[in-house]
Amino acid sequence: MSSVYKGTITLSIFGESHGEAIGVVLDGLPPGLALDMAAIEALMDRRKPGGALATKRKESDQVRIVSGLHEGVTTGAPLTGLIFNENTRSGDYDLLRTRMRPGHSDFPGHVRYRGFNDHRGGGHFSGRLTAPFVFAGAVALEYLKEYGVLVGGHLLQIHQVRDEELGMNPSAATLAALKTQDLPVLSPEVAKAMTEVVEAARAEGDSVGGIVECVALGVRPGIGSPMMNSLESRMASLLYAIPGVKSVSFGDGADFALLKGSEANDPYHFQDGEVRVKSNHNGGILGGISNGAPIRVQVVLKATSSIAKEQDTVDLETGENVRLAVTGRHDPCIAIRGVPVVEAAVAIALLDAYLEDKEWD
Amino acid sequence: MSSVYKGTITLSIFGESHGEAIGVVLDGLPPGLALDMAAIEALMDRRKPGGALATKRKESDQVRIVSGLHEGVTTGAPLTGLIFNENTRSGDYDLLRTRMRPGHSDFPGHVRYRGFNDHRGGGHFSGRLTAPFVFAGAVALEYLKEYGVLVGGHLLQIHQVRDEELGMNPSAATLAALKTQDLPVLSPEVAKAMTEVVEAARAEGDSVGGIVECVALGVRPGIGSPMMNSLESRMASLLYAIPGVKSVSFGDGADFALLKGSEANDPYHFQDGEVRVKSNHNGGILGGISNGAPIRVQVVLKATSSIAKEQDTVDLETGENVRLAVTGRHDPCIAIRGVPVVEAAVAIALLDAYLEDKEWD
Amino acid sequence: MSSVYKGTITLSIFGESHGEAIGVVLDGLPPGLALDMAAIEALMDRRKPGGALATKRKESDQVRIVSGLHEGVTTGAPLTGLIFNENTRSGDYDLLRTRMRPGHSDFPGHVRYRGFNDHRGGGHFSGRLTAPFVFAGAVALEYLKEYGVLVGGHLLQIHQVRDEELGMNPSAATLAALKTQDLPVLSPEVAKAMTEVVEAARAEGDSVGGIVECVALGVRPGIGSPMMNSLESRMASLLYAIPGVKSVSFGDGADFALLKGSEANDPYHFQDGEVRVKSNHNGGILGGISNGAPIRVQVVLKATSSIAKEQDTVDLETGENVRLAVTGRHDPCIAIRGVPVVEAAVAIALLDAYLEDKEWD
Amino acid sequence: MSSVYKGTITLSIFGESHGEAIGVVLDGLPPGLALDMAAIEALMDRRKPGGALATKRKESDQVRIVSGLHEGVTTGAPLTGLIFNENTRSGDYDLLRTRMRPGHSDFPGHVRYRGFNDHRGGGHFSGRLTAPFVFAGAVALEYLKEYGVLVGGHLLQIHQVRDEELGMNPSAATLAALKTQDLPVLSPEVAKAMTEVVEAARAEGDSVGGIVECVALGVRPGIGSPMMNSLESRMASLLYAIPGVKSVSFGDGADFALLKGSEANDPYHFQDGEVRVKSNHNGGILGGISNGAPIRVQVVLKATSSIAKEQDTVDLETGENVRLAVTGRHDPCIAIRGVPVVEAAVAIALLDAYLEDKEWD
Repeated sequence: MSSVYKGTITLSIFGESHGEAIGVVLDGLPPGLALDMAAIEALMDRRKPGGALATKRKESDQVRIVSGLHEGVTTGAPLTGLIFNENTRSGDYDLLRTRMRPGHSDFPGHVRYRGFNDHRGGGHFSGRLTAPFVFAGAVALEYLKEYGVLVGGHLLQIHQVRDEELGMNPSAATLAALKTQDLPVLSPEVAKAMTEVVEAARAEGDSVGGIVECVALGVRPGIGSPMMNSLESRMASLLYAIPGVKSVSFGDGADFALLKGSEANDPYHFQDGEVRVKSNHNGGILGGISNGAPIRVQVVLKATSSIAKEQDTVDLETGENVRLAVTGRHDPCIAIRGVPVVEAAVAIALLDAYLEDKEWD
Repeated sequence: MSSVYKGTITLSIFGESHGEAIGVVLDGLPPGLALDMAAIEALMDRRKPGGALATKRKESDQVRIVSGLHEGVTTGAPLTGLIFNENTRSGDYDLLRTRMRPGHSDFPGHVRYRGFNDHRGGGHFSGRLTAPFVFAGAVALEYLKEYGVLVGGHLLQIHQVRDEELGMNPSAATLAALKTQDLPVLSPEVAKAMTEVVEAARAEGDSVGGIVECVALGVRPGIGSPMMNSLESRMASLLYAIPGVKSVSFGDGADFALLKGSEANDPYHFQDGEVRVKSNHNGGILGGISNGAPIRVQVVLKATSSIAKEQDTVDLETGENVRLAVTGRHDPCIAIRGVPVVEAAVAIALLDAYLEDKEWD
Repeated sequence: MSSVYKGTITLSIFGESHGEAIGVVLDGLPPGLALDMAAIEALMDRRKPGGALATKRKESDQVRIVSGLHEGVTTGAPLTGLIFNENTRSGDYDLLRTRMRPGHSDFPGHVRYRGFNDHRGGGHFSGRLTAPFVFAGAVALEYLKEYGVLVGGHLLQIHQVRDEELGMNPSAATLAALKTQDLPVLSPEVAKAMTEVVEAARAEGDSVGGIVECVALGVRPGIGSPMMNSLESRMASLLYAIPGVKSVSFGDGADFALLKGSEANDPYHFQDGEVRVKSNHNGGILGGISNGAPIRVQVVLKATSSIAKEQDTVDLETGENVRLAVTGRHDPCIAIRGVPVVEAAVAIALLDAYLEDKEWD
Repeated sequence: MSSVYKGTITLSIFGESHGEAIGVVLDGLPPGLALDMAAIEALMDRRKPGGALATKRKESDQVRIVSGLHEGVTTGAPLTGLIFNENTRSGDYDLLRTRMRPGHSDFPGHVRYRGFNDHRGGGHFSGRLTAPFVFAGAVALEYLKEYGVLVGGHLLQIHQVRDEELGMNPSAATLAALKTQDLPVLSPEVAKAMTEVVEAARAEGDSVGGIVECVALGVRPGIGSPMMNSLESRMASLLYAIPGVKSVSFGDGADFALLKGSEANDPYHFQDGEVRVKSNHNGGILGGISNGAPIRVQVVLKATSSIAKEQDTVDLETGENVRLAVTGRHDPCIAIRGVPVVEAAVAIALLDAYLEDKEWD
């Protein structure tokens, strides 16, 4: 039950950080789309470990599409992306079989999995599982291109350093520019400050949290459903699948508490014969369904749990309170590599809703 | 697809604001539980229209359980709660067939439903559908009682008036006390200020937003799953089913952006032979699974979209830009009645995860 | 989990034989269809108790559509059909709380439901639940009409009396004629013989089994999916939801064991520019997907389990072997009223597959 | 949507006959089971191509378990079995891109997949996909062993040669013996006759159909659910996922048409303090739930569609009627290798229902 998204399309994600392979099966994708593998790899590269501010674990993360694609075109049969793990150093994790890393899934996972979970590198809970997740998102983006939909994001905040917001109606050019940056931000000076705060945290053996802002442009009105299948419910259930996500907001998000109805409602008018909102506080979604304005999402990711600083914890075997410094190779700020992962979640939810809407054509 | 939650239990919600009846089918509930109907009605009463600060629409909201209950005890067959609509004034809505209320689902719903949605009172999008939702939550709470789980919440904020937070480890007594208050808040003086801000908004023909904070006590470690079936994914998908919700956060939520790993991680220690966290920044959930600490959720609800103040909008029939004042009977602050609805969502997700965990016993 | 069909559309069936109401929620139906209530009632009337060869329990079985329909047209929101039980004589069932009727769900249901199932009239297991099932099928047939699809069936066999088969390519007129008969058969003389065999069984306090043959005309090629979502998998999972069904076959069914490949394969040719099969052994389905030929299904229903003849059984309370004669009002041959129920199952599966196919348009 | 089974456990099957790899993800399996890989391989070997009466395509069909297993024990995370295709001769299939093989999925698949399906070797529709299906069943059988459940079957019939039936209450020893035979039958003389009929068909360039009979022993009462989640619905939806299956029957199957209620009902009595049926016409299932007697299933598989004999068909490219002889390597009787596939389907459905039942403990 755990790692399956069951919507119009079904995603089944599998693998462990130090197992043989990780991957994803996408069931329900329409046939006939020529996948732009370069675009797919570009998104995956943005998530890949190895950047200056990321973990030192090196993984080529080369996806092998072993089904569902024939001569570069989707067949309509389940599409499977497979990534073989290469650079596993399981020795790093022997101690962690019994010593629970604070902030990690180790302890609740141990209880839920009756002690049989693969503890090495977080096992199935590892951030590494976001690689097939991003692959699935990259495939979804290929379909969304056909509908004229673009998805892109940036680092709105790392620790106390905050970028500008994308605003109610960002341009496609802005999104495109962000995808070319190692540290995707709107203000050039912010990049430098963010780099400093991340490097300082690493130097201290610590880590920092951040916020990813993501938008989807070109989503036509009428995509989504009410209640448990709202666009927000779909996106949130996928966004909360990303390790470290602690808050998901749409449009003005938490600021809605401070807005009156007369301020929060986006008035309509006709523009070139089309119904348009004049503002976009609601982030393009009303009643769970798109209204034609850009979809706006903000996602808070906590600081990496794995830190070199010593922390209090327990040893389940000895029954003793102990001190633990988490060694191994870790990102000091997962929010950075989180940008393409958030984009992937948004893309999967949107494709799911687009295909659902066709059922009524 | 729209109004079904498909987990270990299945919820199928139906009805329109001005239709004949609304209700919910709960499939998968274990047999043998004697339902405390007084407790169920108490939760529903807290959501019911008619309070001083709520809509003037009067509905007895009496639920008839027409299946799944025999001699007061659940049978294990689908349990259906039915509420007949009584106090419908559809005449209020004639104009709204073509004039789209800003902030509402009217326009995206019109497109998605190809113009055939029941527009009266928001139809299936109406906040009125939270009545069967709360009924489902109340039934879930009956089961959770058996596991020693309590769920309760309060109004953390209305517009700029903010209550104290429940904190990392609130008591059962605090939750119980909140359930007895018309305006559930921790600081008595806050109640007065909130009442004033709501009444002022109503007097202006406007409305205000707010934040609901909710906790679940007594959830044992090991409840939940990773990825798309995380506790957060389940809760968020149910919380975002509630009309007006724009932000969902767990534990310290957005503050995680500002916390370092060494601050955000909750250290463990043994207490009476049990593994316990010393703090609870993470709101009782790690890797999608409970860690034994209280579950902490914050939910932002926007101001009621229906306001008497005139707003710009469009008339789909005439193709003209028009002005619209939404008459009818509306809550000036849906966050108030949102408290039991949030509790219901949390309860449904928890029961779902508890039953799932038993599959592995 | 039990009574939900989760496909492109979701069906959630609820109720017990002697509970307050039974019904069904249909989620995912396209908006904009004007339902022909007379046609829906006609199908339901064919299933209704009270005919000469049926149970003497009288139920008007009037469906109230309490949601999803506005001014006679589907809205796209969940459509709910509700039937209140009227003619319950629960006193008939007191003894059956502990005495297990052979052939019935009583004993396995008692174990599965931990003794809490509503035993009166079979509770949720009752054939009475086929009333909302047929309602759902009747609604599905309304949609299928738009695609030019007709579904109809007859009693192929009761005990040793066998009607002609509909053959590989029956006409719409034949199906229409069958719907007007109390005992739908192709050969007039068969009706008389069947009536005699049923009346003889009733006179003996016994019951008889039978076979329903059903076809769907006008299904265009390309409807369905491979593997677990094949047309056959969908239909079979719905047909086996009908109490008493013990065998489900497609096309030549069991005769395929005797056919060679050169006999079983239906050759193709072009006819008016369209690809057509020359024969229809495969019953219109290959690889789980329609090939344009009529869909042919045969469904075997066992004899009614409730018989007046004394049988050996157990009393769970006393722990003794006992004799039991099942009193109450029962059909001597459920296959008769099974014809519209089989049609309903076929229709639901087809609509489900038609809507699924649109996802790829 | 197509190749996913969504029950208590989720199966996601992927791959094409001539693609890079085929496989299955099993989500929801309990942690802590040491898999007996020899037993798993034994079941897979029984399905493997290469026997005297099977296709000449050689595949080692070595499954690599790339996730969900740690040190030989299930972790509770998704378990993935991967089989790389080795012996593909796609050249055999060039002509078949446009010439539709009668009896195959080619034409309906072409329409459903908009001409983009991988036609080589039947693509995703290939019987080869039963390899991961059997792997999934073999894993399910490992769990069922823990509950004391055994599943086994035999060839009841090939063309006109019929074996004895297993009867209402076969022994574990009988099932065990069948698993050791190349051609699993009860009567030794039948094996010879069956071999002859298959070899004769092959010599003619033709193929033959057959019937597989399968039983499950040791299933305790109370496993399953009513209606769309009945044991029969689950099993049938999995059995109809197997290419070539045209009829699925439980217990006495089609013979129920001829039985009176007094004959079809299995009377109960107490035996060693347990409730037992005295006969087993119903094949161990009543109301969708097990009653403690052996589960009995009969499955009819049609003759292999791929035959060397010339048949009439169409060429979609030229628009002409043509003659086609299907070359390549094919089983003359798929029912033979179908035995372990049927066992797998039964096992998956049973495990699914066992885990579901635990939700109510």
